[in-house]
Amino acid sequence: MAIVGEATWLTKPKPTAGPLDAIVRPTVLAPCSSDTHVLHGGSGPKEDLILGHEAIGIIDSVGKEVKNFKKGDKVVVPCVTPDWLAPGVQNSKSFSHDTRVMGSFKFLGSKDGTMAEFFHVNHADANLAKLPDDVSEEAALMTTDMMSTGFHAAELADVSYGDSILVIGIGPVGLMAVAASALRGAGRIIAVGTRPICVAVAKDYGATDIISYKEGDIAEQVMKLTNGRGVDKTIIAGGGADSLSTAILATREMGIIASVNFYDINDKLSIPTLAWGLGMSHKDIRCGFCPGGGERIRRMLELISNGRIDPTKLITHKFYGFDQIPAAFDLMDKKSPDLIKPIVYIDKTPNKV
Amino acid sequence: MAIVGEATWLTKPKPTAGPLDAIVRPTVLAPCSSDTHVLHGGSGPKEDLILGHEAIGIIDSVGKEVKNFKKGDKVVVPCVTPDWLAPGVQNSKSFSHDTRVMGSFKFLGSKDGTMAEFFHVNHADANLAKLPDDVSEEAALMTTDMMSTGFHAAELADVSYGDSILVIGIGPVGLMAVAASALRGAGRIIAVGTRPICVAVAKDYGATDIISYKEGDIAEQVMKLTNGRGVDKTIIAGGGADSLSTAILATREMGIIASVNFYDINDKLSIPTLAWGLGMSHKDIRCGFCPGGGERIRRMLELISNGRIDPTKLITHKFYGFDQIPAAFDLMDKKSPDLIKPIVYIDKTPNKV
Amino acid sequence: MAIVGEATWLTKPKPTAGPLDAIVRPTVLAPCSSDTHVLHGGSGPKEDLILGHEAIGIIDSVGKEVKNFKKGDKVVVPCVTPDWLAPGVQNSKSFSHDTRVMGSFKFLGSKDGTMAEFFHVNHADANLAKLPDDVSEEAALMTTDMMSTGFHAAELADVSYGDSILVIGIGPVGLMAVAASALRGAGRIIAVGTRPICVAVAKDYGATDIISYKEGDIAEQVMKLTNGRGVDKTIIAGGGADSLSTAILATREMGIIASVNFYDINDKLSIPTLAWGLGMSHKDIRCGFCPGGGERIRRMLELISNGRIDPTKLITHKFYGFDQIPAAFDLMDKKSPDLIKPIVYIDKTPNKV
Amino acid sequence: MAIVGEATWLTKPKPTAGPLDAIVRPTVLAPCSSDTHVLHGGSGPKEDLILGHEAIGIIDSVGKEVKNFKKGDKVVVPCVTPDWLAPGVQNSKSFSHDTRVMGSFKFLGSKDGTMAEFFHVNHADANLAKLPDDVSEEAALMTTDMMSTGFHAAELADVSYGDSILVIGIGPVGLMAVAASALRGAGRIIAVGTRPICVAVAKDYGATDIISYKEGDIAEQVMKLTNGRGVDKTIIAGGGADSLSTAILATREMGIIASVNFYDINDKLSIPTLAWGLGMSHKDIRCGFCPGGGERIRRMLELISNGRIDPTKLITHKFYGFDQIPAAFDLMDKKSPDLIKPIVYIDKTPNKV
Repeated sequence: MAIVGEATWLTKPKPTAGPLDAIVRPTVLAPCSSDTHVLHGGSGPKEDLILGHEAIGIIDSVGKEVKNFKKGDKVVVPCVTPDWLAPGVQNSKSFSHDTRVMGSFKFLGSKDGTMAEFFHVNHADANLAKLPDDVSEEAALMTTDMMSTGFHAAELADVSYGDSILVIGIGPVGLMAVAASALRGAGRIIAVGTRPICVAVAKDYGATDIISYKEGDIAEQVMKLTNGRGVDKTIIAGGGADSLSTAILATREMGIIASVNFYDINDKLSIPTLAWGLGMSHKDIRCGFCPGGGERIRRMLELISNGRIDPTKLITHKFYGFDQIPAAFDLMDKKSPDLIKPIVYIDKTPNKV
Repeated sequence: MAIVGEATWLTKPKPTAGPLDAIVRPTVLAPCSSDTHVLHGGSGPKEDLILGHEAIGIIDSVGKEVKNFKKGDKVVVPCVTPDWLAPGVQNSKSFSHDTRVMGSFKFLGSKDGTMAEFFHVNHADANLAKLPDDVSEEAALMTTDMMSTGFHAAELADVSYGDSILVIGIGPVGLMAVAASALRGAGRIIAVGTRPICVAVAKDYGATDIISYKEGDIAEQVMKLTNGRGVDKTIIAGGGADSLSTAILATREMGIIASVNFYDINDKLSIPTLAWGLGMSHKDIRCGFCPGGGERIRRMLELISNGRIDPTKLITHKFYGFDQIPAAFDLMDKKSPDLIKPIVYIDKTPNKV
Repeated sequence: MAIVGEATWLTKPKPTAGPLDAIVRPTVLAPCSSDTHVLHGGSGPKEDLILGHEAIGIIDSVGKEVKNFKKGDKVVVPCVTPDWLAPGVQNSKSFSHDTRVMGSFKFLGSKDGTMAEFFHVNHADANLAKLPDDVSEEAALMTTDMMSTGFHAAELADVSYGDSILVIGIGPVGLMAVAASALRGAGRIIAVGTRPICVAVAKDYGATDIISYKEGDIAEQVMKLTNGRGVDKTIIAGGGADSLSTAILATREMGIIASVNFYDINDKLSIPTLAWGLGMSHKDIRCGFCPGGGERIRRMLELISNGRIDPTKLITHKFYGFDQIPAAFDLMDKKSPDLIKPIVYIDKTPNKV
Repeated sequence: MAIVGEATWLTKPKPTAGPLDAIVRPTVLAPCSSDTHVLHGGSGPKEDLILGHEAIGIIDSVGKEVKNFKKGDKVVVPCVTPDWLAPGVQNSKSFSHDTRVMGSFKFLGSKDGTMAEFFHVNHADANLAKLPDDVSEEAALMTTDMMSTGFHAAELADVSYGDSILVIGIGPVGLMAVAASALRGAGRIIAVGTRPICVAVAKDYGATDIISYKEGDIAEQVMKLTNGRGVDKTIIAGGGADSLSTAILATREMGIIASVNFYDINDKLSIPTLAWGLGMSHKDIRCGFCPGGGERIRRMLELISNGRIDPTKLITHKFYGFDQIPAAFDLMDKKSPDLIKPIVYIDKTPNKV
């Protein structure tokens, strides 16, 4: 039983574990805008696909070759679970493209997602992380995609001590990119956004300046704030095709533009020739998505358990019970003004929390 | 007396050296397509500007604070001569953008060039390199721009052992990029070009495959040659605005596109969205130009004196005498089919060589 | 008039500025253990040398080629001031070794220091940074060596998200390395030290665990804390020759040992062969010291003015008046238990603060 | 039947493939000094261990989960075959330390080697490479350890355009390091060795200078050759414990010492304090061993098939027939003066070649 296609319930047989796999029963879930993107056909027509790729759960069964996990373990499930035997893994720093571009993104990409009574995890030993005693389920849930992706944006941008950073888009990934920039030594962090709840959390995570499209051209505002110098690095975590041009215009020579934005196939991406120094500017344009594997998640969890970050500030709405998944999903889809990220506790009831 | 604007002779006073500078009398010169680009207004209207930025010469005088060079030294002059006290130097790996984007490119950029009886070099101690006894003047001349730029392309592309490389454009810089790729451990090197002289030298420098626009779409040819995989890295050293799209289409996920192409301000540069993996592909788009400073040139000269490369294969035409500069310049401007690079010996006569 | 050799007052002529230099009158000074190290002959016999290399001051005069600074500017003076025209600058990421090893360390190294009524700064345009309005003099003073060096340690260690870090030595540089590790995304930070004042500040800057030589072997304690795994990276910011062996023993395979410790010429440094995996472990041993130049300091100041760090927690003792330099110096030399870092305000009096 | 312990024949059951594994029948083998090192107890007492870790072979059988290889495929077998599901793989650039230090070195390390009628390969899909049509078996055999290790040394040393390189030790790995340095853009390459056959091949692979211990202290000779400057990087591919001190003495500030030497547990490794700049020199000391996985080997094979290198120059002796393994092994053990590397063809006879 699961959410699919037009967001209805679907009955499918319980998945089974191959020798290296695990079957997991989710205990906390979060819908993501990628799920709604898929629902609305953003990655082409899909039928009978179970959505969801962010989950904490309890292992229901493991294949006989699995060594480090067993039935009953409480685990954090990365949204990106590479096939570790595929060649792309050996050539990719972030293990993102195992057999082909984005191949490591299995949930939604090549199999059913996590919004089900049970879901399948390939290469369990390499792709799961144990939930530490001192990290809450909801904090851990934020690491599976939002935090790992936002932190990857700061890694792509190679944020260095004293850098000025522009973060375009302060949805949940952009907010994590703000936090990640501060946690890699950024000086000034200019965030672009308008919704009050997001602006407040952005400041809380380290944004020093907030600018908005409503106040005029973003690149011009950045130039004004930086005395015509531009920022050292720009992270794109939202916005349409224009965000790329804006980023190049707002970033100084020798800078880096790092995008973790999922562009639409119809987006026209262009590089402003003069702002790119006619190809002489050493402005590096990078893109990518969430790195894969259990070790990545373990590192994110280390940051939480050592008090470096609290990602639960992203969570604005909590639902209780498997049957509330559609309500959470619907909220995500409609993006209410007070929403950053909703989660669904499968087992808990409000008064039990 | 010098070549300027509409390629005529111009009389200007002999330049003078500030305390850290040198005045150099050229002994061998080479015109470059950047010179003709400037001549034809590619970088906006310029008046009374002496062209030229590739030269070997003899020091005529030095400022009183210059320590490592003296009158009479035979020197190699980098085409990029940073102001080493400007802040951009401290933030740039290639020392290319001292006070502003491309600021380190002084000749043509902010002062007269080298096609004169005497020319000025700022920060002589940091920006000159002595001509080693075991390197010929014409070989050394090739390091000042062509070799240093072509090698920078391979550095930007981070060519690694066994990489497959596509080099778009096999003019002199592209040819040096082919050689540089082979010298950084590339496996297969696919070069794009058609002129027989360039094709022959490309093969000599290590190209394993030659493809041509005449045979169809470049990206499609690359995909066919690589069984649909694409190349690991692409270097753009020529072509129009399309070269960027071609490069992104021809490069595999996790790859690098490295451009040292000087785009025209009217070029429309676009990124093919799907081939960029909708922003998820980890395909890195880099650009830049020749690194600056004397140490860079010293390293290039080390490669020549140790027999790793012979850049004189680029030299297809030799002229003799200061008054032959216009003839060489004209040849460069018209790009005859048998041309790669012309040089002009100021002092020598043919029978003296 | 200045502190020298056996810590006495010395009368010397006022220094003069070459064309690119500045003469600065200090307003706040700090003695450093390197000063006392030199005093006690740690770098060989020195005579008539003015000590001191950490200072904030007001420009008294500039050479005629200086463009960006003028008499009366309040400036932050890096302890490392490279000769930007020397070749080592072009080959060094940190600009530390201009003409020779440690050549960029001019104060004490090749000329008089800052504990004088006026001192000399070479290459003023490149080596000075303006004091921002929103940064206090004493905070800025901490950037000139302690903060820049401590942060360099974390750079050498390539601290990455979720790394476990061991910091050996929590004097002022080690404390800054703790802060720098937290600001580059470390998870767990184990600091080695015993003095209560240092322990308290270490925790404040982000240390999660404190261990002490008094409790037994450091490497063994680390192994116990990390379940036999060792830490990902170790920073050495204090201790004797043994600190290097300890670091190698305490760091896991593929890890980094980063030392900014100034070893004594009589120290016997050895690598424990088995713990280094018989040379197979990929444990990288790095060393270095404070990077040079004004841009480096500007980046440090950005961190302060954007509220990322408050380095004044290092300052435990404040002195007032030029004649109190010997008292501050003496305190540094004797390392009282409650001391981290003393500073001397030249102009202020206690009630004026 | 296989070579073991005291180099005798041993009868063992044919190994069996787990679901992800392959069983391979060797067609060409090479003994390595690591084998003789193990034989003589260099890694502690071992009983009934089959030696050998360099092999080309034909797949005899594969586990049922293996996708990319099948019975009858001719394959190149890396000497390092990681467990790709172990956490160390996700933290190591070279995939060398899967479960623990050197864990990825399975042959000899944790299971029988390749000098048998059949041997076992874990994670076949990730750890095997197909033998390309245009690469000979003996050339491919050289990639499995010698070439991959020697090239890793140059990677660890980060050899860059124009670098001067010192290579200590010109046995087969050192010779590959010479070739690898030239193929990464080294200028001058000074090799340390004495045996004429090795000296000749070193020159052929790109060494520009040969020095010998017989002519005096190595570091002093290097200083003399480099006018007191030292080399930019040093690769240690042989020699005893002294090689490390020598390397530090011979390398300039900001340089890199890269060791792939397998030290003896009784070696005393020390760092000359003054030559290390009292810890201030930014001389980086790195170590490591052969990277693992099939993609690594595929890259090495690309270099051969594209004509960048011919590693068969290492092969000085050829044996024919399974029963000649002991003779080849004995030759390796005794290191005859004319030996670089012996190989054994299992199937071929001399006249069939």
